Amino acid sequence: MAQPSSHVTAPLKDELDIVIPTIRNLDFLEQWRPFFQPYHLIIVQDGDPSKNILVPDGFDCELYNRNDVNRVLGPKSSCISFKDSACRCFGFLVSKKKYIFTIDDDCFVGKNPSGKEINALAQHIQNLLTPSTPFFFNTLYDPFREGVDFVRGYPFSLRGGVPTAISHGLWLNIPDYDAPTQLVKPLERNTRYVDAVLTIPKGTLFPMCGMNLAFDRELIGPAMYFGLMGDGQPIGRYDDMWAGWCAKNLTAISCANSHLIDKIEETETHDGIQWQGEQSIREFEEGIQGHILAGRHHPILPICCPSKRCTTLQQCYLELSKLVKEKLSPVDPYFNKLGDAMVTWIEAWDLLNSPAQEAAAPVDGVKKN
Amino acid sequence: MAQPSSHVTAPLKDELDIVIPTIRNLDFLEQWRPFFQPYHLIIVQDGDPSKNILVPDGFDCELYNRNDVNRVLGPKSSCISFKDSACRCFGFLVSKKKYIFTIDDDCFVGKNPSGKEINALAQHIQNLLTPSTPFFFNTLYDPFREGVDFVRGYPFSLRGGVPTAISHGLWLNIPDYDAPTQLVKPLERNTRYVDAVLTIPKGTLFPMCGMNLAFDRELIGPAMYFGLMGDGQPIGRYDDMWAGWCAKNLTAISCANSHLIDKIEETETHDGIQWQGEQSIREFEEGIQGHILAGRHHPILPICCPSKRCTTLQQCYLELSKLVKEKLSPVDPYFNKLGDAMVTWIEAWDLLNSPAQEAAAPVDGVKKN
Repeated sequence: MAQPSSHVTAPLKDELDIVIPTIRNLDFLEQWRPFFQPYHLIIVQDGDPSKNILVPDGFDCELYNRNDVNRVLGPKSSCISFKDSACRCFGFLVSKKKYIFTIDDDCFVGKNPSGKEINALAQHIQNLLTPSTPFFFNTLYDPFREGVDFVRGYPFSLRGGVPTAISHGLWLNIPDYDAPTQLVKPLERNTRYVDAVLTIPKGTLFPMCGMNLAFDRELIGPAMYFGLMGDGQPIGRYDDMWAGWCAKNLTAISCANSHLIDKIEETETHDGIQWQGEQSIREFEEGIQGHILAGRHHPILPICCPSKRCTTLQQCYLELSKLVKEKLSPVDPYFNKLGDAMVTWIEAWDLLNSPAQEAAAPVDGVKKN
Repeated sequence: MAQPSSHVTAPLKDELDIVIPTIRNLDFLEQWRPFFQPYHLIIVQDGDPSKNILVPDGFDCELYNRNDVNRVLGPKSSCISFKDSACRCFGFLVSKKKYIFTIDDDCFVGKNPSGKEINALAQHIQNLLTPSTPFFFNTLYDPFREGVDFVRGYPFSLRGGVPTAISHGLWLNIPDYDAPTQLVKPLERNTRYVDAVLTIPKGTLFPMCGMNLAFDRELIGPAMYFGLMGDGQPIGRYDDMWAGWCAKNLTAISCANSHLIDKIEETETHDGIQWQGEQSIREFEEGIQGHILAGRHHPILPICCPSKRCTTLQQCYLELSKLVKEKLSPVDPYFNKLGDAMVTWIEAWDLLNSPAQEAAAPVDGVKKN
């Protein structure tokens, strides 16, 4: 029997949720309609829960506001940030799908140099379904792209690659600069579309942005915690960075811990969308603070290698949380709070993702549309 | 006083040699004339030394054939391969310049998507004169390109980068596949021009190709030995790979050995030229053999970390030669010969590059034109 056409145009339709954190009406979805409409959307409403968020007609979505977060997680809701896009990771918790795509509500569809609209989600899905090659650099970039292969000298034993855990999208227009760089270069725009997908090698940290990001929730979900940011916290705009460093740090040890080698793997990166966001003064101040802290913990993170007794990603992450408290709290007491929140996050993950929970009724947000 | 125009169109004119290994007349230079003519060329004639190699008029070049190699190096000439493009590294030895650009004689000028001819040499020079960023991945790629910077989350302390040792060029048309892949995909062509320069991170090996390559001879020259290949050797087509793995292996330890941090650094890679070469049956057989050996030594190379008592690149390289003999000769006795040749190479390097030698009359090949 021929496949229904929806399978052709919407791969992984029943295995992927789109998570969107927002404080406003989701008019931006109109532009994405041809690409997103077949998928299920999880909206995480940040800020005032009494505000009504409007979603364009025809999208299949559920919405969680702060009251829902508190209802679902009880005291464990303390690990979910408030007034910061870090709250998006609540959507990762309540999803029951294998894959997540998350996008900010000020992102629009980009075009390639021929003027054709880019289906960023389709590219993410392709990345997640093809292997990464983190152990050796291929000078023609992604060897799994049509018309490309491994070059002479690439070890045959490494050509199978490893499962891709994260697909990190880039974008055109406003570059993702930190606050000081943005102040110094307010008019700089990214107009160069780089038509390449490449693996960030093993052991190399990178600044992961949560604005246009997809991942395999079964492989790396428990490490995709966006930390404590925003309301009541000393830093902001580091939620995605933190998650990226933790996730990459855990993938970096996948060789050493062979029991994890088929569980957590590497990261691919590609171009795709267009960002039109702006930055507030508060974001600027928090960003500066984040940078100062970041400068201190970068040298520490790569040495946080969970021991071989960890047999699940959750156990690795809990071990990482201990190291964060032990090594980073002397830098700033904030890291004590963050380490505790990492533990709470894993408790929340297990609460909502245990086999028993999955057999029970699903967690519900407000069904929209 | 205004700079003469030659400085604008030919940067590093007096500090860079172009090294070309060849067995034929150098008609290919006609196409490169606008870009190469201001520079000095070192031709290394491979194979029959009685054959007369013709160079187009107007190029400033000197030519060395096998008789010249024997005359200049005496018994140490055993380290220079015969009937293999690995002989190009003799040109690196006799050069007195700070920078080397080396190119194969079957490479032609490529065009960017707008149809404009690409000055690959100018791009190499720009790469060599701007820092690399091997310690952290920048998701907008080269942060030193005009209109690009480091993204949010990139540690400020790492934004200075480190000196670039190697600029690794790519090319369009025939991809650099190993022999089996080329047999399986004889018609595959690389038509995608990727407009990006990026640093291959610290600790990541890559397949370095000698066909379109530039490097800082003062920083990394002694490690750019292309090994024993071709006539009388069991393998071929691995000369450039070997040099790349050794060079990258030594750069990978530049952090650990702080005395080398300003001496040997990382690698940049970019697109640029067009290759029209073909592969013979002999190359195929040697390539296969090389691949089998390569598969064995890849896991060993990254652990070859010279100790802190090495204070020069030459000393590091000699220590590497010992490890090659010790760790790799059980894989194949060829590595005993190769380890010895690495020692001879360093002796030859010091012979021709000692301060005393530099004060003496330069080594001469046959002056052409």
